Amino acid sequence: MTALPSMNRRTFLNASIAAAASSLLPRMYGETNSSTLEEAASGSHLTPNWKDEGVLDLTNSPHAKLKTVPIRAVVIEQGFWSPRRATNVTASIPSMREELLEHGRMDNFLRLENRSTAQQRGPVYSDSDIYKWAEAVGFALQSEPLPELRRTTDEMIQTVVAAQEKSGYLNTYYVQDRAAQRMLPHTQEMGHELYNIGHLLQGAIAYYRATGDPTLLNAGMRFIDGYLLPDYGPGTNQKPIVAGHPEIEMSLIELYRTTGNRRYLELAGYILHGDDRLNLRPESITYMFCGIPFTSRTKLEGHAVRAMYACCGATDYYLETGDPAYWQTLNHLWQDLSEHQMYITGGVGARSQGESFGHAFELPNAQAYGESCAAIGNMMWNWRMLAASGEARFADVIERALYNGINSGMSLDGKLYCYRNPLAHDSSTRDKIRNPWYDTTCCPPNLERTLASLPGYFYSTSEDGVYVHLYDNSEMNWHLHSGTSLHIKQETRYPWEGDVRLHVHLPAPEAFTLYVRIPAWSRTTTVTLNDKPVEGVKAGEYLPIHNHWSGHDHVEISFDMQPKLVHANPAVADDMGRVAIQRGPIVYCMEQLDQKAGSAPIEFYGYSAHLTGETTSSFEPNLLGGVVALEHPGSFAGAPATEALYSTGEPSAAKAEPATKLKLIPYYAWANREDSSMQVWIPYIRT
Amino acid sequence: MTALPSMNRRTFLNASIAAAASSLLPRMYGETNSSTLEEAASGSHLTPNWKDEGVLDLTNSPHAKLKTVPIRAVVIEQGFWSPRRATNVTASIPSMREELLEHGRMDNFLRLENRSTAQQRGPVYSDSDIYKWAEAVGFALQSEPLPELRRTTDEMIQTVVAAQEKSGYLNTYYVQDRAAQRMLPHTQEMGHELYNIGHLLQGAIAYYRATGDPTLLNAGMRFIDGYLLPDYGPGTNQKPIVAGHPEIEMSLIELYRTTGNRRYLELAGYILHGDDRLNLRPESITYMFCGIPFTSRTKLEGHAVRAMYACCGATDYYLETGDPAYWQTLNHLWQDLSEHQMYITGGVGARSQGESFGHAFELPNAQAYGESCAAIGNMMWNWRMLAASGEARFADVIERALYNGINSGMSLDGKLYCYRNPLAHDSSTRDKIRNPWYDTTCCPPNLERTLASLPGYFYSTSEDGVYVHLYDNSEMNWHLHSGTSLHIKQETRYPWEGDVRLHVHLPAPEAFTLYVRIPAWSRTTTVTLNDKPVEGVKAGEYLPIHNHWSGHDHVEISFDMQPKLVHANPAVADDMGRVAIQRGPIVYCMEQLDQKAGSAPIEFYGYSAHLTGETTSSFEPNLLGGVVALEHPGSFAGAPATEALYSTGEPSAAKAEPATKLKLIPYYAWANREDSSMQVWIPYIRT
Repeated sequence: MTALPSMNRRTFLNASIAAAASSLLPRMYGETNSSTLEEAASGSHLTPNWKDEGVLDLTNSPHAKLKTVPIRAVVIEQGFWSPRRATNVTASIPSMREELLEHGRMDNFLRLENRSTAQQRGPVYSDSDIYKWAEAVGFALQSEPLPELRRTTDEMIQTVVAAQEKSGYLNTYYVQDRAAQRMLPHTQEMGHELYNIGHLLQGAIAYYRATGDPTLLNAGMRFIDGYLLPDYGPGTNQKPIVAGHPEIEMSLIELYRTTGNRRYLELAGYILHGDDRLNLRPESITYMFCGIPFTSRTKLEGHAVRAMYACCGATDYYLETGDPAYWQTLNHLWQDLSEHQMYITGGVGARSQGESFGHAFELPNAQAYGESCAAIGNMMWNWRMLAASGEARFADVIERALYNGINSGMSLDGKLYCYRNPLAHDSSTRDKIRNPWYDTTCCPPNLERTLASLPGYFYSTSEDGVYVHLYDNSEMNWHLHSGTSLHIKQETRYPWEGDVRLHVHLPAPEAFTLYVRIPAWSRTTTVTLNDKPVEGVKAGEYLPIHNHWSGHDHVEISFDMQPKLVHANPAVADDMGRVAIQRGPIVYCMEQLDQKAGSAPIEFYGYSAHLTGETTSSFEPNLLGGVVALEHPGSFAGAPATEALYSTGEPSAAKAEPATKLKLIPYYAWANREDSSMQVWIPYIRT
Repeated sequence: MTALPSMNRRTFLNASIAAAASSLLPRMYGETNSSTLEEAASGSHLTPNWKDEGVLDLTNSPHAKLKTVPIRAVVIEQGFWSPRRATNVTASIPSMREELLEHGRMDNFLRLENRSTAQQRGPVYSDSDIYKWAEAVGFALQSEPLPELRRTTDEMIQTVVAAQEKSGYLNTYYVQDRAAQRMLPHTQEMGHELYNIGHLLQGAIAYYRATGDPTLLNAGMRFIDGYLLPDYGPGTNQKPIVAGHPEIEMSLIELYRTTGNRRYLELAGYILHGDDRLNLRPESITYMFCGIPFTSRTKLEGHAVRAMYACCGATDYYLETGDPAYWQTLNHLWQDLSEHQMYITGGVGARSQGESFGHAFELPNAQAYGESCAAIGNMMWNWRMLAASGEARFADVIERALYNGINSGMSLDGKLYCYRNPLAHDSSTRDKIRNPWYDTTCCPPNLERTLASLPGYFYSTSEDGVYVHLYDNSEMNWHLHSGTSLHIKQETRYPWEGDVRLHVHLPAPEAFTLYVRIPAWSRTTTVTLNDKPVEGVKAGEYLPIHNHWSGHDHVEISFDMQPKLVHANPAVADDMGRVAIQRGPIVYCMEQLDQKAGSAPIEFYGYSAHLTGETTSSFEPNLLGGVVALEHPGSFAGAPATEALYSTGEPSAAKAEPATKLKLIPYYAWANREDSSMQVWIPYIRT
């Protein structure tokens, strides 16, 4: 099934979808914890092994080299991520629930049940905020029971489901006077109806995988089976579909994985292919990153979150179909991402205007948009690319985005969120970068679901063994493809220190390969197996440790934690003459308040890093929740500067004395104290 | 009279103003070309020598070292400025009149005379657009008769004057329902009533100096004498005044110069001092650049045009009073301007937000505001500083602003105007920088009045001789302070070529000093008098040529026209690792459309200038109306770049091959062809 994109649209999928479109919606499960599942008349078939499904369920995906490991199989222990994850569950998710309620997001549903007289509130995509928040809860419940959160979320889900119409339609915006606009071409482009349902499906699946409760999932299927498929699709009697904001594609494919119902995959394929009956405007096609065959895309452009989610759906489609045209396009777009479009923080989407990608190399710092959702989309896409290939370059992007451009999105107290993630900040602008609420509040629950799902990103299994992607104190209890149970315990102070000890436990000896990721930033890495060196270490690749494991082995890895000065391609105008400092996976920044004060409010305009010179690291337990801070030799131009504003002749950067020490903190932790100017890319002096 | 600012506000000026406030408004002249002038009961006394008054009338200003030369005494002949000035008169001024009429700016007046039923249109400062346009006409009429323009402007002035109320109040916005808001404290802050009257006075004075017709001038005096002074001022029975948008100060002082009525000067002094009865908010005081004693200012901040106009008024006040506190503050602010706040183009006001100054060294390029009005304000201020001091550093700023950041503000066809004057432009933003009309259309008539007044900026006289400030083919027919008539003819192709020949003609031999300006950019300059070298040339100073002139002498000046690479102070973050190229007074820029195309739309992100390497110049008669274009060795990074997006180790800028030639055009001429990306500051490679 590799030729779909080149098939004629009119014939494409007709056999399977048109038939399914008229099928009746099965009665699905309303009870929780159902352990027996009946097969739906539509072909849907909820798998009994919901507890074994990971962030994605790639168990049966023919083109997934790597299979996911369930979130509940991995316990992240005291270390770097555990306080962030604890805050997520104790502060972020509960406070976001309060915000959602306060801003009427549940009243929107209650109103339709005559249980509220409140006016509709929020933009067209407001329902998705509830669903993405429910997804965060679903992932959190896969790690721990949280009964009160479970109870209140169950109630919210009941309220959501009660607002569903008999037809299966579910949306709190396109109702009453606005109902006539449903699924009109323009509404499909901008109205986010399918985007909302996509998030409903993702939330429903996460919640189902946590609890076995398919209540919300059934509502999602009722929309697809009962409302969407009968009237919309490629058939001559169907109206065309455009995603508008890609999201439905990956959700439909995950629904396919969860139910086995192939028509969801085929519908996703149809949407990824686009329907030329819609005659979309070229600027819409660019902005929406959908509406034409995905395989005709040649570069990342338009709205960054849309583009990332489209790439997620297309990779999911490849994982199921193996379509080589998809793989070619995805790799081409990934080259564009990694060579031209990605911030050093893993953030993407340079422009505020249209929340969009800019030109190649257009990566402004203070003006950077770098929406939290886009960085998360980047991680989600690379997770799928990694599953398809087993190649470490994708895991490197995941790590870069996760530790930096995503991690920056949530304050240390878990109650403030970044929508934009700029790489420089001028405090005099008074831009408030961290806020508890945005009327477009896509990012906060997205950050919450990401932290909640994190254990699912640590490991994968393959035919020949197991992959270690991320490093933190943790334990995995899962099994090899052979069925042999496998326990891996990680001991480390990563990312603050570079030593990782892996204890590999098996009930009995067995041969398999342990793949440990060597990040591209680690120039010199040593790996030992039971204290004997392992050869063949290459930065930016997985090191395959082929071994007949005794059952009680240990692997020790020592990464290169020397801070590195990083420079950007000279084509990046905004980083010209500047360096960033990275230590391990952590990108650093300077905040004004940590620097020795100048006599005038020149903020960062006066500081320069010396291009050569030793960077020193020290763990400061009381700084920003405990971080390794850096010091690097630099200069402070002072104010007033000793040099004229404009001069001819050689730039004499060395005049920017006196010498000083620049203090740097992890980028993700910026803006957690008083408002202060910040920059990642520091002007350098070549000394 | 040097102690005013330190006097108690309550007693300050009381003697003179309170007495004047109750005086009756004199009957003034309604006829044109009055050659006999009666003294007004109020003390106003229009001078009979209106034809001899320059851009400012400094004839009797005790602290003006330099005296202005009337516009009509200088004829700019075929050369750099004449086509711009011809376009100004034939295209800009007439087309702006049409725009003003089309956008209801005259209907606003006609409505008050029951001659129009149109609604009020435009913002609170719309009347000022008419007055500033009339000022441009006034200056233009000082160079040539233009009878049709004279006729239509006379009509417009009649319409304006007919809308004046008996009280002297004149404003088309604060009428009818809004009349109750007149001169309330908040209205004074934001309502621009006195700003409008300030422009009325400036327009009226220019028109009077062109025609001898005081119709508009009388209306302005009726406002001040009849409406303002009786009720507003420092007196205990008067309400306090704040300028809101400084402008009234310099206008009142020019009115004082024109009438000899000292109460106008004193009122200006009172406004410059501020009135603490108003209890203005600190952010207002910052933004408005008024409301506290001018002499308490320590830096440029807030709205850039307001700050520049305030500085103009304060310098005018110094020129009349010699108050050393003013001179000290003015010099301090000028240091701030020239060391921290001015673009290489002479533009000022870095931020769009609040159209304001930023921090020291905050000079973004693409985001630069650089309002045309602010650059003009900068020139106007420096003209006053130059008059006060005779120091060439002020003339250098005038030249920088005039040839670059002001000249850029009007398209070559004279019908499109810049409000913002950015130093970099990304065509993909689709920002339209040049437009025929802005609802806030302050800049277009400001550009028009500047070009029309230009002859008045070429020369000054002093006790001991004559100063040459600007160079272009021109003839001056004026006289020395001794009364001896003096004719100077300039022959030059400046600014395209560096040779200037001055023919100095006198009716009889006389000793005096000819001061010729040596711009700071001219590193090596030779000057000869009657073919014999003159010693003592210093860049950035006036060269005094003390001589007993025969009556038929010639001076030849040869400036250094070698293109210069300019770098900014390292504290200017946005110019880090970049160079600009300047040749003579002209700042250059690159437009994408002149460069060899890359294979990808990376616009300027891929071009670099070599830091060393010869720049070649050639006059291209068919390019942009005839300009010297430059070529400089550079590199084009190509796309995709051969280097990774992020790398550790030494930045290897030399990889940005292949070598190419960068083509540069004068900055002022950018955006006169198809939309194209542009930049002034080019990344450099140290080769």
